[in-house]
Amino acid sequence: MRILVIGGAGMVGRKLIERLARDGRLGGQAITALTAHDVVAPARIEAPFPIEARVSDISVPGEAAALVADRPDVIFHLAAIVSGEAEADFDKGYRINLDGTRYLLDAVRVIEGYVPRFVFTSSVAVFGAPFPEAIGDEFFLTPLTSYGTQKAIGELLLADYSRRGLLDGVGIRLPTICVRPGKPNKAASGFFSGIIREPLNGQEAILPVSEDVMHWHASPRSAVGFLLHAATMDTAPLGARRSLSMPGLAVTVGEQIEALRRVAGDKAVALIRREPDPVVQTIVAGWPRRFDAARAESLGFKAESSFDEIIRIHVEDELGGKVPL
Amino acid sequence: MRILVIGGAGMVGRKLIERLARDGRLGGQAITALTAHDVVAPARIEAPFPIEARVSDISVPGEAAALVADRPDVIFHLAAIVSGEAEADFDKGYRINLDGTRYLLDAVRVIEGYVPRFVFTSSVAVFGAPFPEAIGDEFFLTPLTSYGTQKAIGELLLADYSRRGLLDGVGIRLPTICVRPGKPNKAASGFFSGIIREPLNGQEAILPVSEDVMHWHASPRSAVGFLLHAATMDTAPLGARRSLSMPGLAVTVGEQIEALRRVAGDKAVALIRREPDPVVQTIVAGWPRRFDAARAESLGFKAESSFDEIIRIHVEDELGGKVPL
Repeated sequence: MRILVIGGAGMVGRKLIERLARDGRLGGQAITALTAHDVVAPARIEAPFPIEARVSDISVPGEAAALVADRPDVIFHLAAIVSGEAEADFDKGYRINLDGTRYLLDAVRVIEGYVPRFVFTSSVAVFGAPFPEAIGDEFFLTPLTSYGTQKAIGELLLADYSRRGLLDGVGIRLPTICVRPGKPNKAASGFFSGIIREPLNGQEAILPVSEDVMHWHASPRSAVGFLLHAATMDTAPLGARRSLSMPGLAVTVGEQIEALRRVAGDKAVALIRREPDPVVQTIVAGWPRRFDAARAESLGFKAESSFDEIIRIHVEDELGGKVPL
Repeated sequence: MRILVIGGAGMVGRKLIERLARDGRLGGQAITALTAHDVVAPARIEAPFPIEARVSDISVPGEAAALVADRPDVIFHLAAIVSGEAEADFDKGYRINLDGTRYLLDAVRVIEGYVPRFVFTSSVAVFGAPFPEAIGDEFFLTPLTSYGTQKAIGELLLADYSRRGLLDGVGIRLPTICVRPGKPNKAASGFFSGIIREPLNGQEAILPVSEDVMHWHASPRSAVGFLLHAATMDTAPLGARRSLSMPGLAVTVGEQIEALRRVAGDKAVALIRREPDPVVQTIVAGWPRRFDAARAESLGFKAESSFDEIIRIHVEDELGGKVPL
């Protein structure tokens, strides 16, 4: 089985490749080769199969065709210009997120008799406020950003190409990934991970919102699990509706903090410094808080059931299993 | 005021231009020039302002830019490859319906300080079965054809470009237009018009479905009215949701026939020959039957309130006001 990961240098892409390297197989079949593609060189990962790193821009005509020329059995398309950048740079967002995705779909389409599994990471940004208390899969597409628009278009194309038998697509809308490893970044959502990650490292974290803010989370390990399940599941029950909101956990910031206290004690919690930021508060107020992922759950997708579990996964996967405090 | 009609050779495009020629003005402003564009030469129409006919393919790069170079104040984009052809010819459907639409939107976008009203004819094909009893504007986008997919993508682009202030878009999803003038065609929906139009001409019409089949209709005159209202309405109340299902009339075939009897008598009705066609019955069974167009109605869009009225409009507009029988 040959696998292509587009967006292989990102956090989720890297964790996906590490997991595939560890498993050596996917859906009961041995992996014989993997191509890790991105605009920057993906990290070297040891695996029982050859991993080819490729660096290029999928929005350059011809590049997508080159990537699928050896007919990978499974294509993971994780590459995207993120929300803030797609909003700031109109051309770049549409070029990568819309044209790049379409080039990939078309590169697959034109190869006679080739119908790979095509896993597309969509986003909850396909939905825009005002929201119901829990957003179901039948909530209408109302993106309020160019990024959300581009992802919604990707979902529509994925469904049409799948319906026509040109590929076998599954679109997954990921929750906010928490605890995100690495350094703090400037994303407005960064504090959801920061208030856990920094205290576990003995460092101070800034909390810019109040503790009653609720958000929708899943661990990086769950994100990889969603991708693997999307790559191997029976797609017949999807019918014409190829994109799914993934399961997750709706917790308030206050509940996150209490989970941190249970896992790492009062000393960790004491490192969280409240510094209300009206700009971040306003952005976060427009975000979805909870989804009804019944459809994905009934199709076998699974996420964490407590925030304690999300923290423990971070400790296991990023901190060698030890709470440092 | 300068107007551009793309798709000016089609039935609705022609009627729109005839109406604009008759009115001489739009939204209280005198029309100074109109460009009628299509892939075939639009019919010559007399008007109190110059009408330039242009023939080209909007999916050829550069053509869209040439069309909007003189900055029309209102752009009506009615051009499309129809459902059956877009399904049969994948490349052509995506090239005209998606690329062509995007070229137009982008041609407008790149002109600094130019924000025209952009009226886009979408379609109820953005929705796919299973349907609720009446389909509201918040029903999720579930196209089951490539045509519906392309129209749904057009709606998403229109909303994003409008949100960013690049143009001032309104998308309208038209009901089935009835009574469609002209000769019988092979569209599966053709009989809805045929069972009225042919008997009024003293000709036999075939009815391939049972009389309890319900469908969603508006007259060609209403279709033109929707376009004019979309071109002149205040778009502020639309917010980020730029596309609307138009009002119409849900009637059964039996109700259509009784309306024909009231308008044109038993002799007309006797010209309808029942010839059940299982293929047409199956196609029609998958179509939406009724919409809840409350949002469009509250914004001032109006359709007929009885099928008698729809028949009388046909008699007035196509038969010189006289019922020929």
